[in-house]
Amino acid sequence: MTLRISIIGFGAVGQGVADVLMRTNHPVTVVAIADSRGAVVDESGVDLAAALKRKKNTGTVATTDMTAVDVIESVDHEIMVETTPTEMETGGIGLIHIRKAFEMGRHVVTSNKGPLVAKYSELCGLARKNNLHFRFEATVGGAMPIINLSEEVLAGNRIIAIEGVLNGTCNYILSRMDDEGVSYEHALGEAQELGIAEADPTADVDGIDTVAKIVILANSVFGMDAGYEDVDVTGISKITPEAFKLAKDGGYTIKLIGEIQDGTLKVAPKMVPRNHPLNIEGTFNLASIQTELAGRITIGGIGAGSIETASAILSDILWIG
Amino acid sequence: MTLRISIIGFGAVGQGVADVLMRTNHPVTVVAIADSRGAVVDESGVDLAAALKRKKNTGTVATTDMTAVDVIESVDHEIMVETTPTEMETGGIGLIHIRKAFEMGRHVVTSNKGPLVAKYSELCGLARKNNLHFRFEATVGGAMPIINLSEEVLAGNRIIAIEGVLNGTCNYILSRMDDEGVSYEHALGEAQELGIAEADPTADVDGIDTVAKIVILANSVFGMDAGYEDVDVTGISKITPEAFKLAKDGGYTIKLIGEIQDGTLKVAPKMVPRNHPLNIEGTFNLASIQTELAGRITIGGIGAGSIETASAILSDILWIG
Repeated sequence: MTLRISIIGFGAVGQGVADVLMRTNHPVTVVAIADSRGAVVDESGVDLAAALKRKKNTGTVATTDMTAVDVIESVDHEIMVETTPTEMETGGIGLIHIRKAFEMGRHVVTSNKGPLVAKYSELCGLARKNNLHFRFEATVGGAMPIINLSEEVLAGNRIIAIEGVLNGTCNYILSRMDDEGVSYEHALGEAQELGIAEADPTADVDGIDTVAKIVILANSVFGMDAGYEDVDVTGISKITPEAFKLAKDGGYTIKLIGEIQDGTLKVAPKMVPRNHPLNIEGTFNLASIQTELAGRITIGGIGAGSIETASAILSDILWIG
Repeated sequence: MTLRISIIGFGAVGQGVADVLMRTNHPVTVVAIADSRGAVVDESGVDLAAALKRKKNTGTVATTDMTAVDVIESVDHEIMVETTPTEMETGGIGLIHIRKAFEMGRHVVTSNKGPLVAKYSELCGLARKNNLHFRFEATVGGAMPIINLSEEVLAGNRIIAIEGVLNGTCNYILSRMDDEGVSYEHALGEAQELGIAEADPTADVDGIDTVAKIVILANSVFGMDAGYEDVDVTGISKITPEAFKLAKDGGYTIKLIGEIQDGTLKVAPKMVPRNHPLNIEGTFNLASIQTELAGRITIGGIGAGSIETASAILSDILWIG
């Protein structure tokens, strides 16, 4: 039997999901896609190539003016895939979509951090009450499968602490400062030219994106009930070439580290020994998980990219199916 | 309901399993333990503390002269945990125990590489035919959960290649040669003094242990039907301080790498860039998994140790339960 899914939000990640489904051969049928301007619905399966082309040419996937909420309410499907832009404070429209999906009896797979940061326990409660799955591997570290690893593979093994390099943009900037001795502004400019940093890089360089990931890990892996305000955060914009020089002389580098330990959540630049597993280069992400029995386990993967993120979404879809 | 298990083989790993079960609170009851001199059986649960003490004081866990095969045949239990010493060429007694367990309708969890290297497809066939689980995470890299990660977490994601640092003893020796510029013989002696290398280090330093792990990964993750003889192997004993100096000058180090790519299996020392994820220190193990959609994923963990290995066994037990 084929799984019927909707894709709600059709930016880079939503398009990546369509792309990945076209490249692979899984029993998954996309019965609807919605973006902010409308939707396309076909119960026998949306033509994904045509949808991607229409989006590219016209800026929208829509062939009808149905809204995302209309799709979630009225089109029969098993899994709603939520990939709209993140709104961290309130959860934004993603939160509305996920609530609606659970109300309609649909499983949810998402890459959208906002709803999880704003309303994690409410959403888990809704999923449980309706006996539905809620999967969000793609929210933390793109292709790095840390949540599913923690939940499934390490079963029986109490997790004591997690620390990680969880933002590829920051790590690219810091790697360049370390390698080349350049200033923060220079490395940021370079990252922006390459499309690694956004024109407004605030969410990355101020640590906001890392905070969101730490909150999601704290809630999902440690069973906490944390929110954005529970994290002590320092960004990377004040780090100087001199600080890197001092670190280097002592055998260290500087990384933006998110950590959860003894119930405390923190995001800050930290000295890391040069031969430490967290000393990774470029846009790679890596988490180090301290466990009771197995000692330290590390898991790394590409932190962003539409195909990589879509791959995490696909794993979650297939897990449900 | 509690899961009833037997522990067959009561060396470091078998004792680790008992230790881990005592430390944690899982619905698992050990109904029998066997070593080469006999067994202890108690259908209401073997007293694990007493069993560990008896082993330590008398050299055997036995209170009866039942053999391991007797236990597997005549004691009711769901899962046989096989931890006897490895015999790579024929599969040794481990192979006999696993065949017998499947014949009797018991699931198998093992840390014993020999039977998997010698008779992988036969054993998988027996498990399938009898509708039983066959789990062996502990055979590759101790606490590093690469097999379960590949099978479950990366579902939907075709794995293209794996390369890894899979032997902690070799990696310790090579790390010391790199850090201190000492000779192979010196670093090996040091590892032996610390108990990291065995008195006869052949299985580690000649690459035999890494070959076994590569064969198990090729068969389980790539669905190949490989054996020991299919791997092209070179050990580490010929590596000189001069080779390390040359590598270092060029920004490289030397690691013993096991790899599977395009159907080819290889174990050999290899130059690795100093900032590459495979440049890990000491007895840590790390594998880099190249996937079709998610790019490169890395997974690392402590490569040996009775508790760490027992933790992988416990994950497998709980997965079945």
